[in-house]
Amino acid sequence: MRIVLLGAGNVASHLGPALQHAGHELVQVYSRSEESASELAVRLQVPFTVHTEDLVSDADIYLFSVRDAVLESLIREVAAGRDDALFVHTAGSISVDVFRNLGLAHGGVFYPMQTFSKKRPVDFAQIPVFVEALEESDCQLLEELARSVSRRVYRLTSEKRRYLHLSAVFACNFANHCYALAAEMVERSGLPFDVLLPLIDETAAKVHTLEPRAAQTGPAVRYDENVLERQKKLLADRPDMQDVYDRMSRSIHALATKTPHKK
Amino acid sequence: MRIVLLGAGNVASHLGPALQHAGHELVQVYSRSEESASELAVRLQVPFTVHTEDLVSDADIYLFSVRDAVLESLIREVAAGRDDALFVHTAGSISVDVFRNLGLAHGGVFYPMQTFSKKRPVDFAQIPVFVEALEESDCQLLEELARSVSRRVYRLTSEKRRYLHLSAVFACNFANHCYALAAEMVERSGLPFDVLLPLIDETAAKVHTLEPRAAQTGPAVRYDENVLERQKKLLADRPDMQDVYDRMSRSIHALATKTPHKK
Repeated sequence: MRIVLLGAGNVASHLGPALQHAGHELVQVYSRSEESASELAVRLQVPFTVHTEDLVSDADIYLFSVRDAVLESLIREVAAGRDDALFVHTAGSISVDVFRNLGLAHGGVFYPMQTFSKKRPVDFAQIPVFVEALEESDCQLLEELARSVSRRVYRLTSEKRRYLHLSAVFACNFANHCYALAAEMVERSGLPFDVLLPLIDETAAKVHTLEPRAAQTGPAVRYDENVLERQKKLLADRPDMQDVYDRMSRSIHALATKTPHKK
Repeated sequence: MRIVLLGAGNVASHLGPALQHAGHELVQVYSRSEESASELAVRLQVPFTVHTEDLVSDADIYLFSVRDAVLESLIREVAAGRDDALFVHTAGSISVDVFRNLGLAHGGVFYPMQTFSKKRPVDFAQIPVFVEALEESDCQLLEELARSVSRRVYRLTSEKRRYLHLSAVFACNFANHCYALAAEMVERSGLPFDVLLPLIDETAAKVHTLEPRAAQTGPAVRYDENVLERQKKLLADRPDMQDVYDRMSRSIHALATKTPHKK
């Protein structure tokens, strides 16, 4: 597989090395940012460019790991005159229709569901990868590509992937934001953030064996109004956090008192 | 130390065995629920009672691990005629003043900051324990007691502990609720909840090395309005989740665009 990697951000900087390590040939890296492009190209020991007109034309796969907002226009630019190649994006929230709508025959999705940061190593083999393509043969190819880097490969339609990506936003981005708000409060107690780490770790570990609803503890699940009111008052100078506190507490209580989940 | 344990819930059922294992003598277990009391008493091989009038009167410490809402009235009931003993509670959100206000000379707090579930073993030695007492000598005693079960013992005033407990609500209860809401969405994608576990684990692991603000990823931090609007639409039939989605996304973006944190 000769692959051109478009993007040099959090996802690309993990996916590129993983693909190369699995024996695929990365022939070029593209990014609008010369700094990001050169940094990743040096790591991969491949050429880079910041101009789409300098992209090679004989790759098998053009793999787009760029911001959702610029994805469509970049695909349009790159695909012109390269109709035979396979165009693939890694965006959890974007439908495979983005390729169909551009009149492309070969389009697919390769969504590795993880939170990537450039400086943090991840074990790609453990990352669930969700693949999909306009053509069955392309889907088989993407499945194979995915299996070469991960042990957890699933086919998933764009329709279903929307909900998966939304669930990832809750489980990752929103959970991390809870940590960020916790960090502000722990600072007020004069303690370092790391006193929270055993709690954060156990909260995550718990849902390996208990479903999250059953794992819930704390004042909101009991709807302990005294505690809830006192805690809201502590946030009097932070209406934004008070608002989050209130909505989350109500939502926790609503879920706790709902009739058992139908299964 | 001769200790009477009042409560047989999530905290007591972990704290009791930890104290016993450290060599302290648990002389009695009390709970209003006979089922809970007897279950814990059998595990600890100590007598239990469901009547406060049957509590022994010669213990050194009466340790209260009960719901915040019933704590004060239970302390009042138990303390009558036992003025020389040390009365201690484990509630993160309740001030040591609860003892002072009842006219007691010996009162203290022993707050193990963790999310406890009866059926899930925890390593007590790793749990941060925060102690405080009305009298310095009692505080030293509680510090010693805490060190016998945990390697992470801190003295903390009630004033500061309020913020610590609030941070724990964000880091644990609210983060877990994000998992619970994620579970509902992943079900719509037709996939099992466990596809989210690598993401949940990495999100928690990340904040060991990056501060949560720096670790944030996803559409809200970029304020990618297309994605945000599309995802909100997916929640059209769930106004409660849509509301949480909206507030959290705004709060993430607000934090991301704030001037760098003063340190």
